[in-house]
Amino acid sequence: MRNIVLIVEYDGSAYKGWQKQKNGLAIQEVMETAIYQITGEQVSLVASGRTDTGVHALGQVASFLTNTKIPAERLVPAINSKLPPDIVIQRSMEAPLSFSPRFDAKRKTYLYRIINSPQKSSIQRSYACHERVELDVKKMMEEGKHLLGEHDFTSFCSSGSQVDSKVREIFDLQIRAEALKEPSMNFPFDFSTESGKKNFFPPAIITIEVCGNGFLYNMVRIIAGTLIEIGKGNERYHIDDIIKKKDRAFAGPTAKPQGLFLKTVEYR
Amino acid sequence: MRNIVLIVEYDGSAYKGWQKQKNGLAIQEVMETAIYQITGEQVSLVASGRTDTGVHALGQVASFLTNTKIPAERLVPAINSKLPPDIVIQRSMEAPLSFSPRFDAKRKTYLYRIINSPQKSSIQRSYACHERVELDVKKMMEEGKHLLGEHDFTSFCSSGSQVDSKVREIFDLQIRAEALKEPSMNFPFDFSTESGKKNFFPPAIITIEVCGNGFLYNMVRIIAGTLIEIGKGNERYHIDDIIKKKDRAFAGPTAKPQGLFLKTVEYR
Repeated sequence: MRNIVLIVEYDGSAYKGWQKQKNGLAIQEVMETAIYQITGEQVSLVASGRTDTGVHALGQVASFLTNTKIPAERLVPAINSKLPPDIVIQRSMEAPLSFSPRFDAKRKTYLYRIINSPQKSSIQRSYACHERVELDVKKMMEEGKHLLGEHDFTSFCSSGSQVDSKVREIFDLQIRAEALKEPSMNFPFDFSTESGKKNFFPPAIITIEVCGNGFLYNMVRIIAGTLIEIGKGNERYHIDDIIKKKDRAFAGPTAKPQGLFLKTVEYR
Repeated sequence: MRNIVLIVEYDGSAYKGWQKQKNGLAIQEVMETAIYQITGEQVSLVASGRTDTGVHALGQVASFLTNTKIPAERLVPAINSKLPPDIVIQRSMEAPLSFSPRFDAKRKTYLYRIINSPQKSSIQRSYACHERVELDVKKMMEEGKHLLGEHDFTSFCSSGSQVDSKVREIFDLQIRAEALKEPSMNFPFDFSTESGKKNFFPPAIITIEVCGNGFLYNMVRIIAGTLIEIGKGNERYHIDDIIKKKDRAFAGPTAKPQGLFLKTVEYR
């Protein structure tokens, strides 16, 4: 018996999330089918954690037990040849039988991407959420600091979660704003009648990167949704207070899934 | 009569390029239909230039003549509401009647994006080409310099083009390589049986940015395809020689359309 570990990049747009289920196609199901086509075995693919409908992964980690004799270095191209183009295994390796991508995970890092622009983006429509009000990134960073450390994150967990403890530790939280250069603005005439001049601001892409020892159900999206409200100038939300309340009702809305990427999972 | 100028961002994946045609849906056609739904006028939308099937634009410039009394600032949201999510007008303004997005263009800038990685990317599959051999970016930059200045670019023009002169000037060419951080690589066990270890190299995204006074048919894609061959170590291609030959047969292949973005058009 061998324990094969895969690092998987996927575009979650077309899927009902990672985990196999009755009401739609899941990434786990598509991958188990591809592995069956190569090994002839019906394996159970265990991931570091679930991702929801529309959520993406740059480095999801998943493993399966197999008796196949196919060498590890040939498994990646073989399984990839059976996968659709929106799911790609980037690397694979053989692990001790005791290794679990889920229970051995020590740190996870997620990205949440926001297009902050008066108009939506066509190209980023499946890979970022859109916010048309100019966000105050400094304010978001100041408030974001209060998430660092070990806290009971009940306020940042969607109801329906059945975990025992809602205490998690956030090691790092970074918010970056990158100006999107305004294309094609150098015109030889006046802009006096330009559309929406009053409401115009320089478009930017804002990325929230958060690293912790684990995340509750919808936790990163609720953090992002709350920080977006803070960036919009909504005075109702203060991270310190929200944490203390231990009640989901006091945090901001759950931000849209398409902005979320599982970036890395670390095991030591 | 008013001359309305639009700056348009589009994801070209689903379209047969910019220009209206019989064999498939073009971006121009979709936009003219949306403008008809708002103004009731069948307008002719003139762009700075065509883009091919699968090619994207961050800042395509297009204009149309209209008698509508809708103020410029209300046209963007109105037309956007009739457009599919892969075509979005970012700004609009009113121009002198004499202004032509095509004939008044002074500089155009294109991006060509390459995922340089042992495996394909799922998320970038429609927004970059994939090259699985590690590219020598320094070599690409050295050779790329020879494209600068005014030259007869016949060797970098697909046959079928009917322009009078194939002399163009390239003002600037930049090649950037950005390392893609390897996700989820920190494992508590040895990599001795890791898949494809021999062929592994750190994944990067390579962007070729080229600015000129105009580009021939497929010129940016042939430049990209030739620079990729040079980056792969193909000794057959030297930009200086290729330019001198004035023969398409001496340049490299036409790189895939999904890596190409029309970034900006400048008018002074």
